[in-house]
Amino acid sequence: MSASTSVRESAVVLLSGGMDSCVCAALAVRDFDASFLHVDYGQRTAAREARAFNAICDHYGVESGVQRRRIARIDFLSQIGGSALTDAAIAVPEDGIDPSLIPVTYVPFRNAHLLAMAVSWAEVIGATVVVIGAVAPDSSGYPDCRPAYYEAFNQLLRVGTRDGHLRVHTPLLHSSKAGIVRLGLELDAPFPLSWSCYINADVACGRCDSCRLRLRAFHDAGSRDPVAYAKETV
Amino acid sequence: MSASTSVRESAVVLLSGGMDSCVCAALAVRDFDASFLHVDYGQRTAAREARAFNAICDHYGVESGVQRRRIARIDFLSQIGGSALTDAAIAVPEDGIDPSLIPVTYVPFRNAHLLAMAVSWAEVIGATVVVIGAVAPDSSGYPDCRPAYYEAFNQLLRVGTRDGHLRVHTPLLHSSKAGIVRLGLELDAPFPLSWSCYINADVACGRCDSCRLRLRAFHDAGSRDPVAYAKETV
Repeated sequence: MSASTSVRESAVVLLSGGMDSCVCAALAVRDFDASFLHVDYGQRTAAREARAFNAICDHYGVESGVQRRRIARIDFLSQIGGSALTDAAIAVPEDGIDPSLIPVTYVPFRNAHLLAMAVSWAEVIGATVVVIGAVAPDSSGYPDCRPAYYEAFNQLLRVGTRDGHLRVHTPLLHSSKAGIVRLGLELDAPFPLSWSCYINADVACGRCDSCRLRLRAFHDAGSRDPVAYAKETV
Repeated sequence: MSASTSVRESAVVLLSGGMDSCVCAALAVRDFDASFLHVDYGQRTAAREARAFNAICDHYGVESGVQRRRIARIDFLSQIGGSALTDAAIAVPEDGIDPSLIPVTYVPFRNAHLLAMAVSWAEVIGATVVVIGAVAPDSSGYPDCRPAYYEAFNQLLRVGTRDGHLRVHTPLLHSSKAGIVRLGLELDAPFPLSWSCYINADVACGRCDSCRLRLRAFHDAGSRDPVAYAKETV
């Protein structure tokens, strides 16, 4: 934590518990007076992700009360389905990534729900920043991870919030995944506590898109992922 | 219902059960292949509003299954509070409207939650339109009812959804409240089934902002609101 006596901006940090948001958390505790939000939207590994969220918050000494740390639930996204992450009838692909397609793991318009929750909380507690670890290059091809999406969302905040001063901050948006690993290592981000696998909650599968992107990121950064994998597919 | 054989666009209609969304429903059953979404976000009169939603859907012969009609819950907005509609510790004003202020009944960034739910459902069922009864003139001064908000939201949809063809349709955005009453009367909208009061669930209070706006709307339209009031404040 900073020993600076200057008043830092307050931020709500969306923390899924994956590698990107883990690095966002490391940046946020350095740069902001940060509160943390995790969303359980009925994804397959929701309980494992919540454990990662709490472990990362504990690591950074974030108070456990709801003033600083919240786990929120959305039932609606799994009720409507339409994604391999929320609908047990749709299999999570394990055969590799086709960058020309929006994959079936896309949860329709999910990030708008997460951002809306973070913005609402920010308005209530007077925070002026929402931090999200969206990544555009090397990503899964989700439309709500594109730079244009965040430009549009910030316009929405300028015209549609109480005083128009809230903004979404996307510190990793233009980073490569390998660059995110290198940044996390520099910041001593607690990668062993993070969880990215879409399928498993014990040993990461190593075959889903999320595991493949993560394994390749550590490989390209010349490092080794501290998380255990059933199979390492790079 | 239209007897036209042309294929109509599919729409998800946000239907709170108030007078504006009641008129939106009348427009939507005329113009779209419509499915209806109601959101219980822990507002004071949630149960009464859900009853209005179902009564209006029944009136228009909307099937009761979740393919056509959904009531979704959000717990988060009442958990964080910050609004007189979701926090029992904040009183709903009964003394009249100050158009220069954002009132304490503003639920922080609420409409983004409602729209995100409607858009997610639209993406899953292949609808291309989301209809919301937002009103800018004569409104309570909520920032998420401004025309610029809907322009920004539509930009978000162009760049951040699966195929970029979804849009939010705001047929009442530039209407006066009296104009909405006149339109509803022309369309034979079921105003007796609608509910607008922020406070009561039996006899409308007639004193909260929502009752005042509604009473004035019927008065200015030269009509009489079919809903019963404890006190009629125009």
